[in-house]
Amino acid sequence: MSNKRIGKYTVKFENRPSIISYASVVGPKEGEGPLRSYFDLIEKDDYLGEKSWEKAESKMLQNAISLSLQKAGLKDSDIDYLLAGDLLNQLMSSSFTAKQIHVPFIGLYGACSTMSESLSLAAMLIDGGFADKVIAATSSHFSSAERQYRFPLELGTQRPLSAQWTVTGAGATILSSNGEGPYVTYCTIGKVVDLGIKDANNMGAAMAPAAADTIKQHFDDTGFDVNHYDLIISGDLASIGMGLTMDILKKQGLDISKKYTDCGYEIYNSEYQDTHAGGSGCGCSASVLNGFILKEMEKKKLNHVLFIATGALLSTTSSQQGESIPGIAHAVSIENSFNK
Amino acid sequence: MSNKRIGKYTVKFENRPSIISYASVVGPKEGEGPLRSYFDLIEKDDYLGEKSWEKAESKMLQNAISLSLQKAGLKDSDIDYLLAGDLLNQLMSSSFTAKQIHVPFIGLYGACSTMSESLSLAAMLIDGGFADKVIAATSSHFSSAERQYRFPLELGTQRPLSAQWTVTGAGATILSSNGEGPYVTYCTIGKVVDLGIKDANNMGAAMAPAAADTIKQHFDDTGFDVNHYDLIISGDLASIGMGLTMDILKKQGLDISKKYTDCGYEIYNSEYQDTHAGGSGCGCSASVLNGFILKEMEKKKLNHVLFIATGALLSTTSSQQGESIPGIAHAVSIENSFNK
Repeated sequence: MSNKRIGKYTVKFENRPSIISYASVVGPKEGEGPLRSYFDLIEKDDYLGEKSWEKAESKMLQNAISLSLQKAGLKDSDIDYLLAGDLLNQLMSSSFTAKQIHVPFIGLYGACSTMSESLSLAAMLIDGGFADKVIAATSSHFSSAERQYRFPLELGTQRPLSAQWTVTGAGATILSSNGEGPYVTYCTIGKVVDLGIKDANNMGAAMAPAAADTIKQHFDDTGFDVNHYDLIISGDLASIGMGLTMDILKKQGLDISKKYTDCGYEIYNSEYQDTHAGGSGCGCSASVLNGFILKEMEKKKLNHVLFIATGALLSTTSSQQGESIPGIAHAVSIENSFNK
Repeated sequence: MSNKRIGKYTVKFENRPSIISYASVVGPKEGEGPLRSYFDLIEKDDYLGEKSWEKAESKMLQNAISLSLQKAGLKDSDIDYLLAGDLLNQLMSSSFTAKQIHVPFIGLYGACSTMSESLSLAAMLIDGGFADKVIAATSSHFSSAERQYRFPLELGTQRPLSAQWTVTGAGATILSSNGEGPYVTYCTIGKVVDLGIKDANNMGAAMAPAAADTIKQHFDDTGFDVNHYDLIISGDLASIGMGLTMDILKKQGLDISKKYTDCGYEIYNSEYQDTHAGGSGCGCSASVLNGFILKEMEKKKLNHVLFIATGALLSTTSSQQGESIPGIAHAVSIENSFNK
């Protein structure tokens, strides 16, 4: 067991990796939702003046990164690594962003768990002394994701009530070895968990067992009481998945219900936005983290947050070949104080 | 600048991350090539008894990982992280491998640069004290890649002479904080470089500028003479890309020609295997590293190797939308001795 591990699968950071800047960009629909006042930029047109939805998504990710740099008074050349990924085949959004931003690029794929995957690795690269400043970023776009994973939008296919609405959004977080917090204090990288769900229109149910597994592991490893955190927030389980997650954990003796919510549940208003179970996509947890969560932490309304982005590792090929949907979740503790 | 960086973009490892095991698995065609005696397992059937090429690829990756564990006398539960990625949409091969191997999973996408991306991160996680044992692994399969990126194989489309042949192969490397070498001593994470090549049948040319950029950066940062290394070997530039890389570097005053070759150039015999420019795919550099290179290092016939896996970050969507092919390359120094 190496010196920065506690319990079986959790890392405790020692060298105060600090969040020094962050930014969120969303599409028009997200800009009409309950969290609208927290986003840095609400795009008026979901094409962003580009010729395709994929290029629009990449532009949105570039905007989030540029804004985060701008807010910190930094340039590309101040950054050691860009850690990014997205839902598009071969990370089209991140790859074409990395082409514009002249920084060593580490491409990640964790489906919608990418925001906590990139944050965890960014914190490790800083804490380990390999970098001074790292950007962790991700994006998703309703139209590029739907046509890739499900149906051409022109078909107007009816969606079941268990379906989630892919968020058009992007988020970027800049971490530094030198800052005043909030700090990344712990991370718990998850294992792939698959209980056999095959319905790509019920991803919350597919991801819930992985979310529960990682949350349980985190509390087992750290020995924390649920009350250690002001907020425990998963990535994009939405209404069905979050209920399942709480149920699974309750059966294992862990009741998180008083502290728990989900980014996909919070980002839309189900009454007037017709989003069924709630939001999904990498951009869901990315924009909620880099909008709502970090702004509330800046105001000290939140001080100890456990953020668990969740991913469904399906592809159209795996679905067509009759495979079930493997889920994954990574947990990151973000806290305003740093206790050695 | 943090303490483990030298020059602008290179990491110098301090805590002796050591390669303690490795394994390579290839398909029948690679098993007839010039490096056949170096591979641990040559599959007789490129379906591996599975019902699809994608499932076969995932099985091959599982076989490489299992073999590497077996050779070291280790079990899944001894491993802290699995770092893996592949070419398939949403990493189908790696995701379904991670479902079988119960280890925290960090999914990566660097196209064919994944072997050096995963090795670099694995070394950082160990050197930084976050892990004791990490598996870095990747795979590719001729048939799953060709039908995803280019044409249905049933069409029998004629391939231009600049085209490369996707290697059916997988490789896994186990790194540990405690071992007798070979050690990962340096890594240089690359930036995305794109000089405007749009032909998916000429990927060597698309990746060469990125390879040259990373190699130049590595020598600039370390101050090494080319003679520091016994071998400088790129991932899958094949005959066209390797010539271009040497030319670009020569114009910048760096002549690597006496030490340099390429995994894609070495893995097939162009005279009797009809592979045109040479091999490509994540499995190309993965099987050559975990076959030829590490076996030659074990015999001390090679002692100082610079390994530069190279990736072409295209997708069918980006090609259809008229985009050029961004390239990336990451360099890793693997050495039998460790000088602090």
